[in-house]
Amino acid sequence: MEAKTKAIALISGGVDSLVSLAVAYSHYTVSALHVRYGQRAQDREQQSFTAIADHYEIENRLICDLDALRHIGGSSLTDTAIPVSEAQPASSDIPTSYVPFRNTHFLSIAVSWAEVIGASTIIIGAVAEDSSGYPDCRREFYDAFDKLIEVGTKPETKIRIITPVIHLSKKDIILEGIRLNVPFELTWSCYRNTSKACGTCDSCMLRLRALQQAGIRDPIDYEKRPAY
Amino acid sequence: MEAKTKAIALISGGVDSLVSLAVAYSHYTVSALHVRYGQRAQDREQQSFTAIADHYEIENRLICDLDALRHIGGSSLTDTAIPVSEAQPASSDIPTSYVPFRNTHFLSIAVSWAEVIGASTIIIGAVAEDSSGYPDCRREFYDAFDKLIEVGTKPETKIRIITPVIHLSKKDIILEGIRLNVPFELTWSCYRNTSKACGTCDSCMLRLRALQQAGIRDPIDYEKRPAY
Repeated sequence: MEAKTKAIALISGGVDSLVSLAVAYSHYTVSALHVRYGQRAQDREQQSFTAIADHYEIENRLICDLDALRHIGGSSLTDTAIPVSEAQPASSDIPTSYVPFRNTHFLSIAVSWAEVIGASTIIIGAVAEDSSGYPDCRREFYDAFDKLIEVGTKPETKIRIITPVIHLSKKDIILEGIRLNVPFELTWSCYRNTSKACGTCDSCMLRLRALQQAGIRDPIDYEKRPAY
Repeated sequence: MEAKTKAIALISGGVDSLVSLAVAYSHYTVSALHVRYGQRAQDREQQSFTAIADHYEIENRLICDLDALRHIGGSSLTDTAIPVSEAQPASSDIPTSYVPFRNTHFLSIAVSWAEVIGASTIIIGAVAEDSSGYPDCRREFYDAFDKLIEVGTKPETKIRIITPVIHLSKKDIILEGIRLNVPFELTWSCYRNTSKACGTCDSCMLRLRALQQAGIRDPIDYEKRPAY
């Protein structure tokens, strides 16, 4: 049997990266990467990362601290002077939770690590359509990043970024997760740093609505579970 | 008088970024960025960064720790298990000091900070021709990065990367520095963590040779000053 090629999965602890991992999992030997960047919920997210990596029995793990985004601020996720907005489903503006150029930092770490351990694929759970309107969640961004990898690494290095759920709606991501039997109960999506998910931020709202549309009840606890 | 536009200068503490800063300085209001990434000489480099920022009276400064590259290793600069090579001027291989995808990390921080403070230009002292053969020091890489910024930031964000010395030889960089009266005595280039520059690593060799070709004596001290 041919040895599987190596991949690095960016695992935030949320639903999108979990389903992306589940989609790609059987094709690769996966290493798991988690980044703390001063986001309010970073300890809770790391806990979910560990539980997910344990669930899939991923041995090779890297948890990094991204000191820079914490210093730079400019987002309600990392700057406590900017409040987390209540969900505004009708808005087309880029929300206050936008962390400037965040996914570039994540991918830079993934590419550096991939080049050192010899991984040829990076798995990221970006979602274009049904997401919050972040510019770095569109496939166009990942195509530009593939080009950057091509010109910015050693000539023999071949690394590509795959985005297994980028064109799916949040509802279809949940359905794909159900099909692949992912452990939704281990995930954390809420932007706030509370013991239970708040149920009122953008991220909770998108998650709850998608689960409801997919016909399942969210297995995690909420401070306030809205009726979607 | 029209207010100058804001720029962020990446200042490593070495000669190339110093001369790049000096070339661009009069056109912008400059903020200074320095990154520690677990490189052996990081404390010495930070000391040079501070002295250079003081010299140019740059008030707005950001010093970041890049935890990830330290963990990832794979380079003689960040991984003490890999020895720093003696200079091999004739080699066309990528040297052991190559830090995988390093400049992408630096630029990601610069872009995130630029987006938050409203800077429109990033100044980086990359050198293509006479450098050590790093893939992320060619203009092709910066063109790809400009494209990434375009698709990966807010629609209203306009940021471009300038590389004032990228097509100059090391000798011409020194001559430009002399013309602009830069404080060479404040810089640090050596890859090693020693009280005086070693005089034998790639970086010392390139520096010493360029200064000699430009007809000036290096004002810093060396453990062992080779005869170029």
